[in-house]
Amino acid sequence: MRVGLLLSYDGTDFSGWQRQGEKRCVQTVLEEAAEQIFSAPVKITASGRTDAGVHALGQVAVFDAETSIPPDRIAFCFNRLLPKDVRVLKSGEVSCSFDITREAKRKTYRYLAYFSPAEQPLLERYATLLPKEASVERMQNALRLVLGEHDFKAFRAANYTSKTSVRRIYEASVTEHVAPFGKVYVLEVTGNGFLYHMVRILAGEIFAVGMGKEEKIGEALQTGERKVLSKTMPAKGLTMVKAEFGAPLFEAPKE
Amino acid sequence: MRVGLLLSYDGTDFSGWQRQGEKRCVQTVLEEAAEQIFSAPVKITASGRTDAGVHALGQVAVFDAETSIPPDRIAFCFNRLLPKDVRVLKSGEVSCSFDITREAKRKTYRYLAYFSPAEQPLLERYATLLPKEASVERMQNALRLVLGEHDFKAFRAANYTSKTSVRRIYEASVTEHVAPFGKVYVLEVTGNGFLYHMVRILAGEIFAVGMGKEEKIGEALQTGERKVLSKTMPAKGLTMVKAEFGAPLFEAPKE
Repeated sequence: MRVGLLLSYDGTDFSGWQRQGEKRCVQTVLEEAAEQIFSAPVKITASGRTDAGVHALGQVAVFDAETSIPPDRIAFCFNRLLPKDVRVLKSGEVSCSFDITREAKRKTYRYLAYFSPAEQPLLERYATLLPKEASVERMQNALRLVLGEHDFKAFRAANYTSKTSVRRIYEASVTEHVAPFGKVYVLEVTGNGFLYHMVRILAGEIFAVGMGKEEKIGEALQTGERKVLSKTMPAKGLTMVKAEFGAPLFEAPKE
Repeated sequence: MRVGLLLSYDGTDFSGWQRQGEKRCVQTVLEEAAEQIFSAPVKITASGRTDAGVHALGQVAVFDAETSIPPDRIAFCFNRLLPKDVRVLKSGEVSCSFDITREAKRKTYRYLAYFSPAEQPLLERYATLLPKEASVERMQNALRLVLGEHDFKAFRAANYTSKTSVRRIYEASVTEHVAPFGKVYVLEVTGNGFLYHMVRILAGEIFAVGMGKEEKIGEALQTGERKVLSKTMPAKGLTMVKAEFGAPLFEAPKE
């Protein structure tokens, strides 16, 4: 049986999703729990690998296992064994032909930044402090330029190659929230896929524009030049919010 | 000179505000930093002591020190020495007659709870998981009953005495926010002061009412009987948001 998992994790104390030797990785922790549950080695694949420090509200992963445990109870079995910073929110059977690395139609990421007189202990794990206040209007105007299909070559980490750097952005928004200490900025972007570091580079440029930098998004999309854009933002402000497929991946567990 | 501090802390890894022997307390950590800055022992007093696990977005504290450091730069000196989970957002000189334990006119606390199929790693430090969804309308109707001046004897921890248990609640609200995994509930309450565990007992009753319990707030206010109310909520969902005084405590640092 092929099993799908809806996962949430706090990336702070993980070296990212992908298993890397002795490091504490989300995949490793999940596969160790799975081996205990199913008494056999299990390979778990995610809809997208997240970097060290990146969080997930709605990561999706699948694996194959032979088991008599009802599919919607597998979440419970994982959660009894998992550390507090990773949780399976739902589990269910998926089609044996379902290929998670190819079938995600839309992915949504969120980047949190804030302005405050000093670092905010209550945001420190999940957001990045900006050196000054940002203009939401300036950020919204710049962000609009990435909507639609473009070659995002300028928006990927150096030395990283993939077959194509063309991606489609369906939705992109940036909002401002007043907090007792200052302001919180929420950048959210939905696309058919993202290049390595793409959201963190986009967030870096958008927040820089909000703080007064001349916008270079149009130029970067045309020329493919990474260097006209601002710095990549730190991993800790990034959260993978959800992955959507053509149809619901699995039915919600019966109440 | 009497110095005022605006503070924020993540209470997760602290045994509360008040110094207790060898335990890691917010007051201890701040006083140790102050002793390094001013080369003399310093006693720091907060506008209200928070319990183990309780957070603060806008705690206020004062101390006396002889120093030539400009008052608005003292925040910076603290932040160079403090651990990441506590930060001084502002510092400034206050009147030598200012008595922080008596002069707060309004205090605001927030309690966060949520509904999700499992614990949410990204909320785990700051909010409490409810066993089922809660009705905001039911919660709002119940919460309205605490507005105004009442004897809150039923809303304090057993064996705790203070001169009077009469307090005035100025504002109280509960709101619901849809999240990818379920719902987040934010209870916020402003009053002229709070008894020991008062906000956590109130939150326990309000969330229980939201989940279907018969409301007993009117009865508890009339009879003073703790036992008609629901359980005290865990400390981790509670955040002290702000303390307000008759006038601004100190001027914002000059830009």
